[in-house]
Amino acid sequence: MSRFLSQRFASIEPYVPGEQPQGRKYIKLNTNESPYPPAPGVLEAINREEVAKLRLYSDPDARPLVAAIARRFGVGEDQVFVGNGSDEVLAFTFLAFGGVEKRFRFPALSYGFYPVFARLLGVTYEAVPLRPDFTIDPADYIGCGTNIVLANPNAPTGYALGLETIGEIARSNPDSVVVIDEAYVDFGGESAAVLLDTYDNLLVVQTFSKSRCLAGMRIGFALGSAELIADLQRMKFSFNPYNLDRLAILAGTAAMEDEAYLNTCTAKICATRRRVTDRLREMGFTVLESKANFVFARRDGIPGGRLFAALREKGILVRHWEDPLIADYLRISIGSDEEMDAFLAAAGQILEEETK
Amino acid sequence: MSRFLSQRFASIEPYVPGEQPQGRKYIKLNTNESPYPPAPGVLEAINREEVAKLRLYSDPDARPLVAAIARRFGVGEDQVFVGNGSDEVLAFTFLAFGGVEKRFRFPALSYGFYPVFARLLGVTYEAVPLRPDFTIDPADYIGCGTNIVLANPNAPTGYALGLETIGEIARSNPDSVVVIDEAYVDFGGESAAVLLDTYDNLLVVQTFSKSRCLAGMRIGFALGSAELIADLQRMKFSFNPYNLDRLAILAGTAAMEDEAYLNTCTAKICATRRRVTDRLREMGFTVLESKANFVFARRDGIPGGRLFAALREKGILVRHWEDPLIADYLRISIGSDEEMDAFLAAAGQILEEETK
Repeated sequence: MSRFLSQRFASIEPYVPGEQPQGRKYIKLNTNESPYPPAPGVLEAINREEVAKLRLYSDPDARPLVAAIARRFGVGEDQVFVGNGSDEVLAFTFLAFGGVEKRFRFPALSYGFYPVFARLLGVTYEAVPLRPDFTIDPADYIGCGTNIVLANPNAPTGYALGLETIGEIARSNPDSVVVIDEAYVDFGGESAAVLLDTYDNLLVVQTFSKSRCLAGMRIGFALGSAELIADLQRMKFSFNPYNLDRLAILAGTAAMEDEAYLNTCTAKICATRRRVTDRLREMGFTVLESKANFVFARRDGIPGGRLFAALREKGILVRHWEDPLIADYLRISIGSDEEMDAFLAAAGQILEEETK
Repeated sequence: MSRFLSQRFASIEPYVPGEQPQGRKYIKLNTNESPYPPAPGVLEAINREEVAKLRLYSDPDARPLVAAIARRFGVGEDQVFVGNGSDEVLAFTFLAFGGVEKRFRFPALSYGFYPVFARLLGVTYEAVPLRPDFTIDPADYIGCGTNIVLANPNAPTGYALGLETIGEIARSNPDSVVVIDEAYVDFGGESAAVLLDTYDNLLVVQTFSKSRCLAGMRIGFALGSAELIADLQRMKFSFNPYNLDRLAILAGTAAMEDEAYLNTCTAKICATRRRVTDRLREMGFTVLESKANFVFARRDGIPGGRLFAALREKGILVRHWEDPLIADYLRISIGSDEEMDAFLAAAGQILEEETK
């Protein structure tokens, strides 16, 4: 750090994203991207005519995209906020509703970015341990009186809470914002968007990066009461008003309008997840029953770090963390059937070599 | 605002961007966009094959773009920071280097976003009035001991400081960051990038939105010492690591590599600016001698607000502010020759109607 950096940032540890290798070609099962291309409409929407128009600013209100999202979820356009990826949406959320006097509470094992946002933005937070079986104890959040962020399904476990529990958490914390981060909801979870009419303190965050096959286009959004959304707009228009570029608005609109394509992609991924889960269990792995586009798994007898390195050696990237609580586990994104066959074959070979 | 919004934001006034009309077709001379399309290489770079790859995350280090910028300016790749528009770069700059104890100083008449960033991010600031002739008094900044942001050329005046003055300001404030916002530098200013080897407290910010004809793609960047750039990276990787999407990285790289196209576009705009300035003066306007892609002008006998409204009526959008100091003025972006002819004809008609 330079001698100019504000002292309050001296000890922050930035988030470390999953590796994006630029050289050797890997089978990438490390960042929960979709193995399928974006919806056909996206390829039509980004054409030469639109590229030539890039000389003009994008619409800071991203109107067609906001309208498409509002239609899809049956909410008003004033209930939709769009951001440059759901990371930006979450950053604005921590900034708007947090502070020294207003804490955030979230699970200690969840999306690793939550504590990073909080530290950067001077928001006090409580990271609550999961139960030993990696499930969230709803009692930790019911009536806790702090703002709350819950990834649902959670990462890296893939476990989801039901809507009744989410409703109970929102109902029992009427003076706090309850953020449900639904990055993985389309792979088997239930969206809390249906509860928005009931709870004005609920903020539902989703992304185009997983089920909508657009990780590289950077689009996320939040749904909530018009008042909560206006607060997020206030942050955006004081930080980066033109946060979505023209092509992102076009791509996002086309992707949101093709529900059939979304359903096809998520059905394929859920089927592949079933097959991979079963096969890994046959191979002696413990695999958490996931509702996301990844599985979290460990194998007795081989430490997670060693398996991670051996897979990497064979050209397959998965995600591994050093945190002792989960150091035995790998998070494996669900790719195409071909990619997963290659992964299963490599894992089988490694186990064979291990037991020699 | 909702009852959940942090109290510290109760009184912030977000930035109001220039109007982006979605319905009626206007001649847009209100947001300093380029009248020319992006470089031909940009149209080649964004092709179907790349759109299909949008399922994958972008490179959070935006390597090809950073490399192209580093080559162009003859600096190390660790001296380049890229952001989702220069607004995001500036937001991270205020966040990283400001605070309650470390003030920012900038001209009271300049880019209207500076005080908004400061208020949002809890940065104390001093807005120093310009001289009555709208020039910056260097004495206000030499040895002032605060962080400094200077738009150079300044907006909405179009006046530029010379490099000797910038050097003197940097030299006399060795413990503060001196940010030179060069959004308009390619239209007649001199870039302070050549001073980076001399002053480790200098941060030069530029954008692809004006001279590189890519306002709709949202790309800005900062050049500085490796330490200052590392500080900005720390902010980005704690806020939004994948801040540039895949297509923005491709488009920016292609645009940065085509210096000939940049020169052609900026030469045309400077020639049109000369012609428009002279013609407006013949029509009785006072026009500041601009080094940017806009002119700042007023006409005795017709208030700025009335002229603004009359032009709008005729399908021509320019920028007008209510601030009494500049309420008589309009900021008119330099468009194509055809657009400026239409503007001059409309202005002539309005003046004729006024004097009837």
